[in-house]
Amino acid sequence: MVTLTSRVDIMVPRLTTALKGPLLDLEQRILTAQPSIEHWFRRQWLDHTPPFYSSVDLRNSGFKLAPVDTNLFPGGFNNLNPDFLPLCVLAMQAAVEKICPEARGVLLIPENHTRNQFYLQNVAQLVTILKQAGMRVRVGSLLPEITEPTTLTLTNGQSLTLEPLVRSGNRLGVADFDPCVILLNNDLSSGAPDILKNLEQTVLPPLAAGWHTRRKSQHFAAYHRVAAQFSELIGIDPWLIDPHFDVCSQINFHERIGEECLAAKVDDVLQKIRTKYTEYGVKNDPFVIVKADAGTYGMGIMTVKDGSEVRDLNRKQRNKMAVIKEGQPVSDVLIQEGVYTFENLNDAVAEPVVYMIDRYVVGGFYRVHTDRGVDENLNAPGSSFEPLAFDACCTLPNPDCAPDDMPNRFYAYGVVARLAMLAASFELEAVAE
Amino acid sequence: MVTLTSRVDIMVPRLTTALKGPLLDLEQRILTAQPSIEHWFRRQWLDHTPPFYSSVDLRNSGFKLAPVDTNLFPGGFNNLNPDFLPLCVLAMQAAVEKICPEARGVLLIPENHTRNQFYLQNVAQLVTILKQAGMRVRVGSLLPEITEPTTLTLTNGQSLTLEPLVRSGNRLGVADFDPCVILLNNDLSSGAPDILKNLEQTVLPPLAAGWHTRRKSQHFAAYHRVAAQFSELIGIDPWLIDPHFDVCSQINFHERIGEECLAAKVDDVLQKIRTKYTEYGVKNDPFVIVKADAGTYGMGIMTVKDGSEVRDLNRKQRNKMAVIKEGQPVSDVLIQEGVYTFENLNDAVAEPVVYMIDRYVVGGFYRVHTDRGVDENLNAPGSSFEPLAFDACCTLPNPDCAPDDMPNRFYAYGVVARLAMLAASFELEAVAE
Repeated sequence: MVTLTSRVDIMVPRLTTALKGPLLDLEQRILTAQPSIEHWFRRQWLDHTPPFYSSVDLRNSGFKLAPVDTNLFPGGFNNLNPDFLPLCVLAMQAAVEKICPEARGVLLIPENHTRNQFYLQNVAQLVTILKQAGMRVRVGSLLPEITEPTTLTLTNGQSLTLEPLVRSGNRLGVADFDPCVILLNNDLSSGAPDILKNLEQTVLPPLAAGWHTRRKSQHFAAYHRVAAQFSELIGIDPWLIDPHFDVCSQINFHERIGEECLAAKVDDVLQKIRTKYTEYGVKNDPFVIVKADAGTYGMGIMTVKDGSEVRDLNRKQRNKMAVIKEGQPVSDVLIQEGVYTFENLNDAVAEPVVYMIDRYVVGGFYRVHTDRGVDENLNAPGSSFEPLAFDACCTLPNPDCAPDDMPNRFYAYGVVARLAMLAASFELEAVAE
Repeated sequence: MVTLTSRVDIMVPRLTTALKGPLLDLEQRILTAQPSIEHWFRRQWLDHTPPFYSSVDLRNSGFKLAPVDTNLFPGGFNNLNPDFLPLCVLAMQAAVEKICPEARGVLLIPENHTRNQFYLQNVAQLVTILKQAGMRVRVGSLLPEITEPTTLTLTNGQSLTLEPLVRSGNRLGVADFDPCVILLNNDLSSGAPDILKNLEQTVLPPLAAGWHTRRKSQHFAAYHRVAAQFSELIGIDPWLIDPHFDVCSQINFHERIGEECLAAKVDDVLQKIRTKYTEYGVKNDPFVIVKADAGTYGMGIMTVKDGSEVRDLNRKQRNKMAVIKEGQPVSDVLIQEGVYTFENLNDAVAEPVVYMIDRYVVGGFYRVHTDRGVDENLNAPGSSFEPLAFDACCTLPNPDCAPDDMPNRFYAYGVVARLAMLAASFELEAVAE
């Protein structure tokens, strides 16, 4: 038996904020209500289908704990604690069993990155999890330059073989492999390619979950409903877990169209935050995050503390905001209440990310940034971060510890992340209709 | 992140036998066939319901890996590696969800031991797992002397509160607690008490799974069918995983009735083993285990190498064989092929026990005995053993390691244990009809 004698020594970000009252109360209520919460989730899964997998970026300000992004094509499985691989495998077995018990073969389709070692390690880790869950797995690439099986040796010693896709009628596979399930780890930012359309096989997540159709505002509208129900269940102010937001459409940053709408809505959201900060005695400056309503990878993102700031963007800022990943133009913009992240590791800012397979929380890690402020987006392009795997899993709350001790803080993270995941399932139902 | 730099140093029993050929081949085939095996199990669970929980005692002789006992009311959850508690919690969530998603309250009914610290720690661990899975849990005792809530402080520092059962009409609970599910951790050796009969609530495992109705011979007959199918799937001789057995009924050890039948069947089973040993070049002496067909706890168990031995039992041996737990008389006797256990830790004999919740393997441990031989039952009353938790879980086979390296040996254990668990589900279906 492995005994860890000094778990206390393990690095865990510290919450450094003067104002912990509301969050401690939130964490205490989550802890006390655990049986009701788990029962409530079980009931939700009777009526709703969780996404195949997901990751949720959280922000913890000491007075508020909220999701700020929900990814339905999660990268970063390589950043999870290897000790919890068995959890991923068990959750994957349950997911596969539920969706397609007859499944034997899975075709995994990743993003078109062949040089991003971290991303490739994520793909290799997904292959491992699927294999350990007893599936046959091959990786099919959408890249035109992959014309034959290509084995990449990764810097961590793993290897990954990308193969060219082969479509026969309405079935997709790779050479000598006819899978039952197509698993996307590609967020389809520039639309679903024809080769993925009208397939006989089950495609997970569905094509409609791609960023070419998904809107953050729809996600957060669904989350708003979920958060309201949940807050009633455990008796809290929903604002403690739900960021305000609004949306501006038909923006054109290059041509400076829509700036007034944006500035007005920024001020409106800031005012709503200010009211809440006054109610709770929060001394920090309210801020909002302005970002593309569709899209990922933190491109096209700004921190704004006053509406006037979006009227005075210089050319460089406008260029940065105008396009997201794969050069897609931005026309719809989300204005989201900024949530300070007051978790710190040494002097670096840390943001928790929680991973789920089906309805199960399987782990998480902190994005630790040494060069970013407490009010900045931590998932921006080019911003490097150190992943710090959660030491413990998110399913072992301990009523004998303080509500903000790690097992209980992780449990609260897992609960809020699952609320965002439930919101995503509402979102997917809406697009499936 | 917790990094274990020297997993190699961890104590693991060594397989010390000259003849590993057949088992290496078995382990290799299990490893190679992993996707087919997992697919086959998934298909089985479409048609069959796994027991709520189970544990399976295995014996590993180097040339044969087989289950020798399947427990549907497993004790020993306290012996599992605490690092794998999250796995138990996740599997418990899946089990509860499937059986009764509306469940909030579970009443756990343990065995009537109040002084066996190890058993009480097992009950406390089950309470922990159920609570972490989000259930409200209370422990109701069948003991008449428990007339009010009684808190026991366990030697490991945990505490456990036993409460008197309260039956109102056809509902069972404890004071101010009306559970949805009654979870038995009591094997009902002396029959199902009236207070458990005709309940409105779901009782798990069902009363018919108790040792008052269950027969080992029915289990091993079901296992024989399962092993045959599985062996065809992966192309092995079923004998490598399936012990021969036979049964004698209407034995009376006190009155020396049935001795001839027993002696003849012992010799018959020994002859079958001898034929196989010759086929595989095994040099060891064949032996059989004679034990009560109903019952548990290893009472009424003998190692026999010749039919004449059961004709010449002295009074003490006959008394020992005549009764099992709770003084129940033995009339039906199982004659089971003995499987040598050639796993050794230092000089002690080690026998693996695998634990499952629903259809998921959640861990296991070795029973390590310093004072027992390789051909003796290791779960005998009064025999003390040291539990050695499996260091790794049973779901992470690694094709890059040798077939008998620990991850792969554990995977093979998990597979054979699940075969026995599947046999138990056939058994439970038969009694439910």
